[in-house]
Amino acid sequence: MKHQHTMVHAREQAGENTRNRARLLISCPDRAGIVAAVSRFLYEHEANIVQSDQYTLDPEGGMFFMRIEFDMAGLEQRLPQMEEDFRVIAEEFKMEWRFSRVSQKKRLAIFVSKEDHCLVELLWQWQAGDLDADIAMVVSNHPDMREYVESFGIPYVHIPVTPDNKPEAARLQLEAVEGKADLIILARYMQIIPPEFIERYPNRIINIHHSFLPAFIGGKPYQQAYVRGVKLIGATAHYVTEELDGGPIIEQDVERVTHRADVNELKRMGRTIERVVLARAVHWHIEDRILVHQNKTVVFS
Amino acid sequence: MKHQHTMVHAREQAGENTRNRARLLISCPDRAGIVAAVSRFLYEHEANIVQSDQYTLDPEGGMFFMRIEFDMAGLEQRLPQMEEDFRVIAEEFKMEWRFSRVSQKKRLAIFVSKEDHCLVELLWQWQAGDLDADIAMVVSNHPDMREYVESFGIPYVHIPVTPDNKPEAARLQLEAVEGKADLIILARYMQIIPPEFIERYPNRIINIHHSFLPAFIGGKPYQQAYVRGVKLIGATAHYVTEELDGGPIIEQDVERVTHRADVNELKRMGRTIERVVLARAVHWHIEDRILVHQNKTVVFS
Amino acid sequence: MKHQHTMVHAREQAGENTRNRARLLISCPDRAGIVAAVSRFLYEHEANIVQSDQYTLDPEGGMFFMRIEFDMAGLEQRLPQMEEDFRVIAEEFKMEWRFSRVSQKKRLAIFVSKEDHCLVELLWQWQAGDLDADIAMVVSNHPDMREYVESFGIPYVHIPVTPDNKPEAARLQLEAVEGKADLIILARYMQIIPPEFIERYPNRIINIHHSFLPAFIGGKPYQQAYVRGVKLIGATAHYVTEELDGGPIIEQDVERVTHRADVNELKRMGRTIERVVLARAVHWHIEDRILVHQNKTVVFS
Amino acid sequence: MKHQHTMVHAREQAGENTRNRARLLISCPDRAGIVAAVSRFLYEHEANIVQSDQYTLDPEGGMFFMRIEFDMAGLEQRLPQMEEDFRVIAEEFKMEWRFSRVSQKKRLAIFVSKEDHCLVELLWQWQAGDLDADIAMVVSNHPDMREYVESFGIPYVHIPVTPDNKPEAARLQLEAVEGKADLIILARYMQIIPPEFIERYPNRIINIHHSFLPAFIGGKPYQQAYVRGVKLIGATAHYVTEELDGGPIIEQDVERVTHRADVNELKRMGRTIERVVLARAVHWHIEDRILVHQNKTVVFS
Repeated sequence: MKHQHTMVHAREQAGENTRNRARLLISCPDRAGIVAAVSRFLYEHEANIVQSDQYTLDPEGGMFFMRIEFDMAGLEQRLPQMEEDFRVIAEEFKMEWRFSRVSQKKRLAIFVSKEDHCLVELLWQWQAGDLDADIAMVVSNHPDMREYVESFGIPYVHIPVTPDNKPEAARLQLEAVEGKADLIILARYMQIIPPEFIERYPNRIINIHHSFLPAFIGGKPYQQAYVRGVKLIGATAHYVTEELDGGPIIEQDVERVTHRADVNELKRMGRTIERVVLARAVHWHIEDRILVHQNKTVVFS
Repeated sequence: MKHQHTMVHAREQAGENTRNRARLLISCPDRAGIVAAVSRFLYEHEANIVQSDQYTLDPEGGMFFMRIEFDMAGLEQRLPQMEEDFRVIAEEFKMEWRFSRVSQKKRLAIFVSKEDHCLVELLWQWQAGDLDADIAMVVSNHPDMREYVESFGIPYVHIPVTPDNKPEAARLQLEAVEGKADLIILARYMQIIPPEFIERYPNRIINIHHSFLPAFIGGKPYQQAYVRGVKLIGATAHYVTEELDGGPIIEQDVERVTHRADVNELKRMGRTIERVVLARAVHWHIEDRILVHQNKTVVFS
Repeated sequence: MKHQHTMVHAREQAGENTRNRARLLISCPDRAGIVAAVSRFLYEHEANIVQSDQYTLDPEGGMFFMRIEFDMAGLEQRLPQMEEDFRVIAEEFKMEWRFSRVSQKKRLAIFVSKEDHCLVELLWQWQAGDLDADIAMVVSNHPDMREYVESFGIPYVHIPVTPDNKPEAARLQLEAVEGKADLIILARYMQIIPPEFIERYPNRIINIHHSFLPAFIGGKPYQQAYVRGVKLIGATAHYVTEELDGGPIIEQDVERVTHRADVNELKRMGRTIERVVLARAVHWHIEDRILVHQNKTVVFS
Repeated sequence: MKHQHTMVHAREQAGENTRNRARLLISCPDRAGIVAAVSRFLYEHEANIVQSDQYTLDPEGGMFFMRIEFDMAGLEQRLPQMEEDFRVIAEEFKMEWRFSRVSQKKRLAIFVSKEDHCLVELLWQWQAGDLDADIAMVVSNHPDMREYVESFGIPYVHIPVTPDNKPEAARLQLEAVEGKADLIILARYMQIIPPEFIERYPNRIINIHHSFLPAFIGGKPYQQAYVRGVKLIGATAHYVTEELDGGPIIEQDVERVTHRADVNELKRMGRTIERVVLARAVHWHIEDRILVHQNKTVVFS
């Protein structure tokens, strides 16, 4: 498609400008001198800080979080040595840390069942050049969207899930994604992800829940919202943990509803909120803007 | 105070323009011909419809709700006969109904504990001529705000509540309000209202809960919100029923928060949302815009 | 595509339930008795009112607007006679009025240039069964999206526009749409629509302007917004009149931005707002929820 | 008043915890090494960074903005020497900079005409301990609010403004505020501030304009909004410059309106938005969160 070609081109161009850009993410116990040590380190490595965010959970004896985006000439060649050099500081301050190169796109696996609006949104943003990632595959427990997904040149992996084959299905899913995907996106995927899968992707599985959590945990949230007569409906993007709908919240948004909206209308409105909220969460994840501490997120948006 | 005088004047003027205005509220099982019957009735009584809202819960065999605002010359003299005449229609359609004259202001009793922001908002709106009601009294379980409230010329009723005197306190509260207040507003009143009080004011006690219900029912909702790491905090105005924080929701709103906000900051932000949400609910109630069906509200806002 | 088939099916089902439903829209000088006359008329024609909205611009000598949605058995056969019967009332009250059958879908022509996000949104909603209309064609001054549009089974009409051929292009466009489209949607169509086209589609051409009008009229609104340093960016859907970006506003929305957003980021964020705002306006139009009076809209949403 | 006393106490306590806290604000041309130099400087002065925000307008050759909040034991005694020491770095990087002690509250002069809602909001927040500043005086061209303002123990300065005495009035106003106020707040003050006043308080006069600028510049913005039929109304807080309603925008917000709202209703709704927007802007200013560059603000909120 001509249409598609233009867009692919747009995405490539964006890559050009960020070849020498990287990000450093740090979590550690707070202590005087962290920023000084890190920024001197970057200065001595001739890195120019483009953006820096930090947050201290509690000035006295709390946790310190930092995200730095920087440019450095010859990044690809020099980053391994830089990471090696950084160990001294990291050990001194007991940091959890990681560098990531902006031009090394994250690879996404999108899980979907029958509702397609979140998938369509991500594909559209990706095709428009607005989602700076590679979509490695779409995984579904239904065959319905194969043709649509493959028309984007994206592999479609159909793994049926039945009451009887759940462990086998999880094994097949893991097999499909491991080594190929950095982030799993549950784009209205209606099956429970088993613990053994979750522990392989800690804080790297994003789910969109179709309510304003912690209201309406579990199934049929729009039905629950209708019965309760709420005046706002919402959606929540969160990392998946073993606790159902209980993982760290990344993003939430709501829209106003009136008594006139029946359950179908709530669902229809909800589809737009879900799309927007999930897309924001995915953007922040792939731009390394999210740090998780205990069961909460620090989002340097 | 000069300041106060100006404002009182503003309130009186508003009253002038609505002397011949009334509202008719109707709930009944849906059936063909309701609107025709009601609007013909009004036409024959020489009433001019200013605003009309209706809603049918389910076109086939559901409930019908209607609010009509109309002008009629000589309203005060003619309304009693009009109400008498309306009984025929009301019986035919099995209506719950009521007429109310716009110029007959509702009388409010505001209950408050130690936090004053919701009270201050209501008093300010009332003084500014934006709250078309009379404030009959402020009731509190603490003596702290007496001087402030009385400076507006509003009676302050201090009824202490202790673990031991709860039934007695409730009796005193009822005694204070009955015959003097049409609507009870719990403006961050931190005591439970006992069932025998609630049943005397069905759908006429409005509470402001400082969370986005049904999330964070019960005590310390901002603390709960902080622990859960939500990205929006909210407030909910609802009618009080025997179920704690479970009554019909009138209005809700939220504001965006980030990881930077600690519990105190959530409370500070929350104060603005609570004020706005409670004030909206009170406005709609005193303008007869709310109909309650089962545990939900129809708000013709 | 399997995917597409499911969706088409969903759209057809929706149609089933509304076979006997119609809408009546009225604008006229306000006067006592309008509602009574209209509702008695409907009652006598055995029509059951499902929803009714009315608005009076100014109770004393102003304009009256009304929208009624009703069910009537045998609608298709009986509507012509009903329209005939209604003339008596319409003349008495000097009404502008029209009936429309819900099952008779409006036909849309979507005009687009190079930016595809608004088009993609409308096509997605249409395919998902959320847009209750027929898309008669996509008209573009560029050939780029032909393949994409035709993959939905929708005709693509490429009419190049150059500085020299504007009258000829307008003629070709009119030729393409007349008799085939009831509503023209300018989904980021970047050419001026000439007056002779506009007068053929009064209040039936919807444009999405990428700013919060009346701020930033004309070209490059995101650039203008960036220079002015606004803290919210927005989009406006309006009917097209001869005055550039000056027609009746149907819907507006905004999103919060910070100093961090450069023009490209404003554009990226804006794309989501534009999509949502345009889609809302189109929904309201096809559901006959919009009445235009002078240069303003009454939207019974 | 007991009520007032509690609050004053709350404000004092807040002061306690911030005795050793200061802020450093920097604007300069971007260059490698700034963050390293500044953070090493703070580290060597035994200052612990509590919060740090930075922003680079354009990584290559643009402007760099930074705000650091830090704790340092013995701040009051040591800050003068620290400022002296900082000059070396400041000169090297061509910085505009300033330190400010958090416990040294800014002194506000609030200018008001006849509409009191913005004034009331600020006084309420101040009394509730939510506004960490001193209110030095209220200045008004009308005598109406003297009693109300003085009841808070705040001086009220009445300076009439007539077509004939404008230069004299401006002179009296300057005389009243100079040396006593750090920030001028135009809380719906309806007179033009003359250039000679503005240049004495560059980026230290905050005005609340009752529209979403740049829409509806000048007088009667709600009337303008009503005529144009916008679907959102808003308010804008901005620094005052010589260009009417043209200064750097600090904050904006909007609320949804429908065709039902007449000009008075727009004004009533607007009062809530104006209060909230102005209060936010004032908070950010007194917390040194705003840097101005050319005609735009960088707000580290």
